[in-house]
Amino acid sequence: MSDSPRRRIPEAALGRLPIYLRILVDLGTENVAQVSSEQLAELAAVNAAKVRKDLSYLGTYGTRGVGYEVQFLMYQIQRELGLNQSWPIVIVGAGNLGQALANFSGIAERGFHIVGVVDKDESKIGTVVGGVRVKHVDELASIVQSKAVNIGIIATPAQHAQEAADALVRAGVGSIMNFAPTVLAVPRGVNVRKVDLALELQILSYYEQTRNNGLRAVPTGEHSDSVSA
Amino acid sequence: MSDSPRRRIPEAALGRLPIYLRILVDLGTENVAQVSSEQLAELAAVNAAKVRKDLSYLGTYGTRGVGYEVQFLMYQIQRELGLNQSWPIVIVGAGNLGQALANFSGIAERGFHIVGVVDKDESKIGTVVGGVRVKHVDELASIVQSKAVNIGIIATPAQHAQEAADALVRAGVGSIMNFAPTVLAVPRGVNVRKVDLALELQILSYYEQTRNNGLRAVPTGEHSDSVSA
Repeated sequence: MSDSPRRRIPEAALGRLPIYLRILVDLGTENVAQVSSEQLAELAAVNAAKVRKDLSYLGTYGTRGVGYEVQFLMYQIQRELGLNQSWPIVIVGAGNLGQALANFSGIAERGFHIVGVVDKDESKIGTVVGGVRVKHVDELASIVQSKAVNIGIIATPAQHAQEAADALVRAGVGSIMNFAPTVLAVPRGVNVRKVDLALELQILSYYEQTRNNGLRAVPTGEHSDSVSA
Repeated sequence: MSDSPRRRIPEAALGRLPIYLRILVDLGTENVAQVSSEQLAELAAVNAAKVRKDLSYLGTYGTRGVGYEVQFLMYQIQRELGLNQSWPIVIVGAGNLGQALANFSGIAERGFHIVGVVDKDESKIGTVVGGVRVKHVDELASIVQSKAVNIGIIATPAQHAQEAADALVRAGVGSIMNFAPTVLAVPRGVNVRKVDLALELQILSYYEQTRNNGLRAVPTGEHSDSVSA
């Protein structure tokens, strides 16, 4: 889908691209046309030299004194991340989390669509979640093949996550996003990303403890979107 | 609660402490007693010098040739993050995501307990979620005060997130974890952390696109827990 020669982007820089993208989407919503590396850096809580370096992997360098065009930079990052196509996704686990993800507007808006939801709980099979009828996990491989699915989400309890991962791998899924608080073993070549729902809570508890100890620490960091009123 | 003099930890280092903690918990489960900065660095996908620097903010330096004691380092990070106490949490939004979070084992295991869940949907009020009876959002302030709550979670749809944030701020909550895909305006001094449920999906789509283009990129990065089989 890409029309640029592809280089390998270092993992750390890659991890920041979705953060820049989110900032650019917000700026676009506010009709901001241009953004400097300094502004982007401040909003992403990294330094400006790092922003310029990260964006240079996309072959984009901004214009001195003007910065980057918001819409074009958004397009470039989306293209680099493969978001100029819509990715079909399957979700394993039709409990509350699976249902929340299937209905989550932030997923569909970002170029993903849920084509299958599976569970092994008979009481869930046949119900409709996020517009998709829940099927038995035994049908996972046929869904993955008929819908050309590359990415699967594990939204099961921790004790069933490995089983879910094994089923996804057997079905031929190459990338797994794991919401269960557990470490998965997968064959080499399968990508696993873990989403730790409690990670940000741990950072908040640090700030609350610091606040209680009389040291006011106002966070300025990555993922923070504190706005001064 | 802390018995060490408190320094301000840089935001980037702070963001890595929960990642080290998760790795240490996994190592502890496997009965690993010692870990070198190189091993920690590899598992967290940062370089060893950065690990040593990050941990030096805790006043801990490891032992040359031996590394760090897993259990003691776990204790030090937990203490630094304020996780040696249990933090009462309220959740605004008793839909699928709120229910999933209230029931999520990974939250209770990490030193947080849900003391209140509120919603404005009359059909949800009075139901029991994660062991807590859902109350009307008008009761938020009295829950926050009676349970000494400092941290609130927003698990509403995007269009209700600002209203939820305003209610939390009015109730006196100082730290907010926002799951809604929207930017919140809060007064200075209120900490907001955003959890972007689609961020990791965007990184997976990069790898899948790269794979499809014939360039095999095996991720080695932060948050990845790919295991070679």
